[in-house]
Amino acid sequence: MPSNAQQDFLQYINDNAGPFIERLKEAVAIRSISGDTNPDVRKEVIRMSIWMLEKLHSYGVTAEAIPLGKQIINGEATDLDLPPVIVGRIGEDAAKKTVLVYGHLDVQPANQDGWTIPDPFDLDVDTKSGKMIGRGATDDKGPVLGWINVLEAHYKLGLQLPVNMRFCFEAMEESGSEGLDDFIKVEAAKGPNGYFGNVDCVCISDNYWLNNRTPAITYGLRGIAYFNATVSGPRVDLHSGVYGGTVHEPMTDLIAIMSRLVDSQGQILFDGAYENVPSVTDEEVALYEAIDFDVSELEEFTGPVALSQDKITVLMGRMRNPSLSLHGIVGDSSGPEAQTIIPAKVTGKFSLRLVPPQTPESINAKVTKFLNEQFDTLGTRNHLDVQMVSSGLPWVENTKHWNYDAAISAIKAAYPDRKDPDLIREGGSIPVTLTFAENLPGANIVLIPMGRGDDGAHSANEKLDIENFITGSQLLGMYLYAVAAAETN
Amino acid sequence: MPSNAQQDFLQYINDNAGPFIERLKEAVAIRSISGDTNPDVRKEVIRMSIWMLEKLHSYGVTAEAIPLGKQIINGEATDLDLPPVIVGRIGEDAAKKTVLVYGHLDVQPANQDGWTIPDPFDLDVDTKSGKMIGRGATDDKGPVLGWINVLEAHYKLGLQLPVNMRFCFEAMEESGSEGLDDFIKVEAAKGPNGYFGNVDCVCISDNYWLNNRTPAITYGLRGIAYFNATVSGPRVDLHSGVYGGTVHEPMTDLIAIMSRLVDSQGQILFDGAYENVPSVTDEEVALYEAIDFDVSELEEFTGPVALSQDKITVLMGRMRNPSLSLHGIVGDSSGPEAQTIIPAKVTGKFSLRLVPPQTPESINAKVTKFLNEQFDTLGTRNHLDVQMVSSGLPWVENTKHWNYDAAISAIKAAYPDRKDPDLIREGGSIPVTLTFAENLPGANIVLIPMGRGDDGAHSANEKLDIENFITGSQLLGMYLYAVAAAETN
Repeated sequence: MPSNAQQDFLQYINDNAGPFIERLKEAVAIRSISGDTNPDVRKEVIRMSIWMLEKLHSYGVTAEAIPLGKQIINGEATDLDLPPVIVGRIGEDAAKKTVLVYGHLDVQPANQDGWTIPDPFDLDVDTKSGKMIGRGATDDKGPVLGWINVLEAHYKLGLQLPVNMRFCFEAMEESGSEGLDDFIKVEAAKGPNGYFGNVDCVCISDNYWLNNRTPAITYGLRGIAYFNATVSGPRVDLHSGVYGGTVHEPMTDLIAIMSRLVDSQGQILFDGAYENVPSVTDEEVALYEAIDFDVSELEEFTGPVALSQDKITVLMGRMRNPSLSLHGIVGDSSGPEAQTIIPAKVTGKFSLRLVPPQTPESINAKVTKFLNEQFDTLGTRNHLDVQMVSSGLPWVENTKHWNYDAAISAIKAAYPDRKDPDLIREGGSIPVTLTFAENLPGANIVLIPMGRGDDGAHSANEKLDIENFITGSQLLGMYLYAVAAAETN
Repeated sequence: MPSNAQQDFLQYINDNAGPFIERLKEAVAIRSISGDTNPDVRKEVIRMSIWMLEKLHSYGVTAEAIPLGKQIINGEATDLDLPPVIVGRIGEDAAKKTVLVYGHLDVQPANQDGWTIPDPFDLDVDTKSGKMIGRGATDDKGPVLGWINVLEAHYKLGLQLPVNMRFCFEAMEESGSEGLDDFIKVEAAKGPNGYFGNVDCVCISDNYWLNNRTPAITYGLRGIAYFNATVSGPRVDLHSGVYGGTVHEPMTDLIAIMSRLVDSQGQILFDGAYENVPSVTDEEVALYEAIDFDVSELEEFTGPVALSQDKITVLMGRMRNPSLSLHGIVGDSSGPEAQTIIPAKVTGKFSLRLVPPQTPESINAKVTKFLNEQFDTLGTRNHLDVQMVSSGLPWVENTKHWNYDAAISAIKAAYPDRKDPDLIREGGSIPVTLTFAENLPGANIVLIPMGRGDDGAHSANEKLDIENFITGSQLLGMYLYAVAAAETN
């Protein structure tokens, strides 16, 4: 039975859905695309960070914007400011637990085909369908604003938060969280004097339910190793009529080696790609069997392209096996016109998703060796350069912990009519999770997703359901109460 | 010994090098990029055509701009006007031969890396090095303005041209000469009443010497078949973290089939790629042996990436063998950022250069069959669509003809201190050559290049040497005198 404070909190969230949605619209309108190095776009990323700082201030949080210096591109410092990390603290009661919250304020580009609204940065709120479409709605502005909703409710109601809270909001998550790792290391090393002192648990809301009905808790993430393989040779782009048939063409060589990385069944082809990845146990199969998931639901969103119709195979493909995706080629003829060039220098971009005990370092060595060996077999006079340009370790948390018990009971309270939450591992990477795990070894980390499985983060028509935003805000607050009530022994 | 008229003509060209270069600068400044479908850019293409029309008028040519209708993109008419074709005539003397001149007014895009001048559309004239750098300088504004120089000289000197001249200048050459073929067919069918009536020979100046010292005459062109291979499946772009390892990825499938088209030695791999291409004869080897060429000169421009160090192998690779180049992929992640998407729909662009008796139709059937067969082996649930989006037949002319004798004697007159001209076949395609060959069966066609082998058409730092522009203008005039003097029996 919720306490009076909890009931007042839940009521406040319900009553203020309208203004909360307006605030989300305001946040989405800030085009905080961290992957765009245009200085005007970067200003928007920074503006988003400062917007967040002001919100924290207005609800009683002691917060500041910590500069992270200049962006480094291709190993060289640029004139481009990194957006600051926003850190904050509220509550200094030694008798209470301390919860650290992380979220990110930046978004992916929105230039994909497929948007059905005129401007992806003008949140489209359809009260009939209950969907709010816009870039960043679910990744990660909705969840971040969920925390603001919790803070506002307590501030406006004059209620004390049930726990001490610490905040860490960055704005380079979609671009490798540049600068954040070092900051967290330094801040964590300050111990009790720092923002991350005495943190008992960490809560991150930056992923999604597996389906569109059953809330989820995430205890694992795949890591990532992102590669650029650059083939060069000709001094300049060449006319294919004049030079086709006379020179070694970089595109031919690049396509050849890219084709040897992965097959059409998703099988990774280089030596050691699956090295040390544990075999599946019966207990693990039972775990996946319990998850509320059907392949047809995946295909509702992706279209009929699943690698398998077997539920467990697909779940394991997403959660506990590595994968390799070819993302694109830089420097080729990428427009629709029938351009007849032999590009002089082309860069293949691809990434692997990693699972324990794989590490980016070990995969980097294997990928680099494999590609160079394959390139040597081509007999070309062009040159290959392989670089791992960003990376993150995979992560799996201990779920037999009061932090997970708190998350489960909060979900049951916020969503009383739903099935028990799915315990899942996420296919994507949130590298900061690893940084917190490494630097706050005493703190258990839980991921509580706000959005649904079909939200389409990174895609056209990214959306967040109104229900997930509002009930999700209640859930985040209820989690704090459940943490406060948890027996720690 | 040149006549007085010829001497006056040669002198006039010499004396007016300065204004001629200024006029080339004016033409280069018009950004007539036909491959850009931005309406503002298209206006520039049309402006270039009208600019040309006015020049013809001012030197006594009866000329008009013939509209070609709207551009068709992906099979559908758009609102975009095609640039008009500019046709003209001067001289109606039945006792004189009639020469048809073709050239094009449009240019390639200029967004490649590697330009050393601030604006590729601001012709950089370096009188010390003798080079004029700018987009379109050599392809094809320099040669087109060469004809204008010839017209101006005769007009200003009050000299009659030694032949009747007909002109056909288009502005969609870099984009498949859309609309031109139909126009030429209709116009040619008019017989003596049309612009192309009674044409004895055709002269096209739209290619390059093989090296940087020996003028050339071109009697053959490779054809082209340009393909789009589109792989689709997922409804929208997908996040590689969430969906990597669960779905068939279009990029994986596309890269797989593209890798099977051609190897790193330039060998085309599909069945029938070399079908019916004649074996090399001893006579043919002797022809290539006579050409003034060294592989080191190729590599001076391209860098050290030649497929062979053997002169004859490289010349045949360019002139008499088919080739296949992979140009790029549309719809992938083509920017430098580490974007983590699985693109939903990707189009591989590649083209073949063809030699007689290959035809685009026969190659289209072979390529489509091969790619579909290869795609079927992948076991993917994605879909493949192969389209030949533009094409041109290969062409070889009879060189034992007075038109070639005239071209050779004109070159010897204009370049008395050089080696005898190289008789070459060109690696690139100029499909309009075929259209003229088909529709004007009685007219012999010769290609007289103005620029040098290192001009870099389509590349960064495209240039034309001042000498080639000025002496080349003299050459075009001398060719008219040599045609006039030629014995036709």
